[in-house]
Amino acid sequence: SINAERLLARIHELGAIGRDDRGQLTRLAASDSEKLGRDLLVHWLKAVGLDVAVDRIGNIFGIWQSEENAEQLPLMLGSHVDTVINAGIYDGCYGVLAGLEVIETLKEQGVTPARPIVVAAFTNEEGVRYAPEMLGSLVHVGGLDIEAALATVGTDGTTLGSELTRIGYAGTVEPCALTPHAYVELHIEQGPVLEREATTIGAVENLQGISWQRVTIEGVANHAGTTPMAMRSDAGLAAARVGLFLRDHIARSNAPSVATIGTMRFEPDAINVIPSRAVFTVDLRDPDEERLQALENALDAQLRVIMAEEGVTVTVERLARFEPVTFDRAIVEMIEVSASARGFKSRRMTSGAGHDAQMIARIAPAAMIFVPSRDGISHNPREHTDPADLVAGANVLLDVVSRIAGG
Amino acid sequence: SINAERLLARIHELGAIGRDDRGQLTRLAASDSEKLGRDLLVHWLKAVGLDVAVDRIGNIFGIWQSEENAEQLPLMLGSHVDTVINAGIYDGCYGVLAGLEVIETLKEQGVTPARPIVVAAFTNEEGVRYAPEMLGSLVHVGGLDIEAALATVGTDGTTLGSELTRIGYAGTVEPCALTPHAYVELHIEQGPVLEREATTIGAVENLQGISWQRVTIEGVANHAGTTPMAMRSDAGLAAARVGLFLRDHIARSNAPSVATIGTMRFEPDAINVIPSRAVFTVDLRDPDEERLQALENALDAQLRVIMAEEGVTVTVERLARFEPVTFDRAIVEMIEVSASARGFKSRRMTSGAGHDAQMIARIAPAAMIFVPSRDGISHNPREHTDPADLVAGANVLLDVVSRIAGG
Ligand SMILES: NC(=O)NCCC(=O)O
Ligand SMILES: NC(=O)NCCC(=O)O
Repeated sequence: SINAERLLARIHELGAIGRDDRGQLTRLAASDSEKLGRDLLVHWLKAVGLDVAVDRIGNIFGIWQSEENAEQLPLMLGSHVDTVINAGIYDGCYGVLAGLEVIETLKEQGVTPARPIVVAAFTNEEGVRYAPEMLGSLVHVGGLDIEAALATVGTDGTTLGSELTRIGYAGTVEPCALTPHAYVELHIEQGPVLEREATTIGAVENLQGISWQRVTIEGVANHAGTTPMAMRSDAGLAAARVGLFLRDHIARSNAPSVATIGTMRFEPDAINVIPSRAVFTVDLRDPDEERLQALENALDAQLRVIMAEEGVTVTVERLARFEPVTFDRAIVEMIEVSASARGFKSRRMTSGAGHDAQMIARIAPAAMIFVPSRDGISHNPREHTDPADLVAGANVLLDVVSRIAGG
Repeated sequence: SINAERLLARIHELGAIGRDDRGQLTRLAASDSEKLGRDLLVHWLKAVGLDVAVDRIGNIFGIWQSEENAEQLPLMLGSHVDTVINAGIYDGCYGVLAGLEVIETLKEQGVTPARPIVVAAFTNEEGVRYAPEMLGSLVHVGGLDIEAALATVGTDGTTLGSELTRIGYAGTVEPCALTPHAYVELHIEQGPVLEREATTIGAVENLQGISWQRVTIEGVANHAGTTPMAMRSDAGLAAARVGLFLRDHIARSNAPSVATIGTMRFEPDAINVIPSRAVFTVDLRDPDEERLQALENALDAQLRVIMAEEGVTVTVERLARFEPVTFDRAIVEMIEVSASARGFKSRRMTSGAGHDAQMIARIAPAAMIFVPSRDGISHNPREHTDPADLVAGANVLLDVVSRIAGG
């Protein structure tokens, strides 16, 4: 079994990095605070005796290989160390640090695995600063050109490439150099299912599709006091209709789809001026590609209705689009078997969140292990997983690793 | 008659000050760009031979008095030189510069008025940077304590008092020192009525009540992908309901009320995080105090409904509340008579916008003169008034001034 204390101590130590004056944790991709998190991770990888490689998009790899197994394709474990704004400490870091813990445990046990084992921390998984999310793993699988990825402009106007250079993580390794034999990602569920069913281990067999768009609505700025209600082209009210439409539409269609308007900006954003512009993002998801497309089409049609009825113009920009993914059946079964062997209740499930595993699945057999999230909350400082569950997940990961790369 | 060319040239010269790289005009109260506008105004006031006084809240007064009339209460003309974000050039500046033009014309004609004539530029009329709007004139009439006014915190976290000091307009004159005999403010209509009726002069007989509130809705931040629609407390959707409710409610009640949500901010404002907080302003207006109160009550009740239905908490902060004002009947009649004597069509009307005249009316007989706004647009760079109308308004002001303070 893994060293529970060591794993938990590292999670908390990394979770202390990137806190502001108010104690809020924010380690946006390629920011100053994420640099500190990366530095700590690299320090640990080296302390455990791993070779550290950083590729041009800033993905960090801790590589454990020997002369005997160096010819084999590696087994890759991993996740990310960037966070959302005002985040919890487990999302991403848990998978990276558990990967490291598994390697350290195997080393301590004197195991010589049949293939190299690599722990990866991928750049910009959260997608909060740069879109699309899972950008580092997407580049790794060749799904996005490295030059285009480096040129990505963030919500703060920065360019990912120059930010990586600035924080010292624009590596020299060409991306895609490491094609794994298989990829396993351990993660908190970030949803309510495991907790509700008192189940310790989720064997994640698929992952829903994700559609990200930025919508800009242009109305006419005018005086809040002198412009009769009937003579307005209010971009803010037009934007308000979009979110409420999506919720009603999903409720009516009785689908498991989710829709979120997470960002909103008004212009000129003045108390006595009718908004001339509203810019917001729409995040749509569904485990079924056809249903996801239908939802996108419904939004499109509604935007046209709003244009006509509100006297506004609407433009839409695509930020990300990932189809639903089905994970590798054999690894999913190994997760179930490993959980059961340790006496943990498990269930197959769908991931509602996007993960690096979703990208790596394009080039290698992949799957994910979930552990419960208290109250289903994540992307929030109240994000929490019981230490016993964190340890259980890491031990299941250890066993799956042993099955795939056992000495 | 006034010197049309001089007036128009000054309007355009002042309108060129405070433009950004994109050519957008923004002279927020007590900002660097407003300082430049104030400097130009003071330069002109002095060039015309007026005494310049600046009070502690930054109100600027250009005073024309003689030994003979110094004992009399002054006739005050004026408006403001601050603007909204991405503004037009007429709102405020027109009234100040026409006041100056009237004085300069009377001086050139060798008139010795029966009482001093003062042209005033009041601080923070727009209320975009600091609430409430009309802050400078409110302090002038004793409606807001000077220390409280100086301590007002702006949308950018600055304090009005320290900003006034920084730009050199924290004057030494105690506010309220100047109580006028009467006050006349010339302004663009900022609405569609005069243009629609091909009428040159509005004799403004009343002004609607204004209610400004800041609403904060607190929901729960959670993951956009993993949180089922039915399990959300989405502060953004709750906010969306408020604006649409107000519009529907006003439409149903068939009232002339207007409601505007001009500012909106989400937290954490991330694409894949359900908003935990939405902060926005509500601007409600109605010419009738009872109807305005009924609208405020309807909003209150609806906020309670939204709290219950959306699982959010709502807090409301009052930013400004001004009752409807009725202007001085005698001055309104003088405006009509003056317009008619010059062959201009006029009509009595209500002001939808708040104005410094609304504050001064508390301490002195006051009224306003409106000229048409093209397409009814203001608080927008497309704000426009025909030069002939600008000149007509200034000439009516000249005649009203002669009637009140004639030599
Ligand atoms: N796991 C996770 O929160 N990933 C962020 C990408 C997304 O699902 O929005
Ligand atoms: N005239 C004018 O636009 N005043 C600003 C105050 C308001 O009416 O909101």
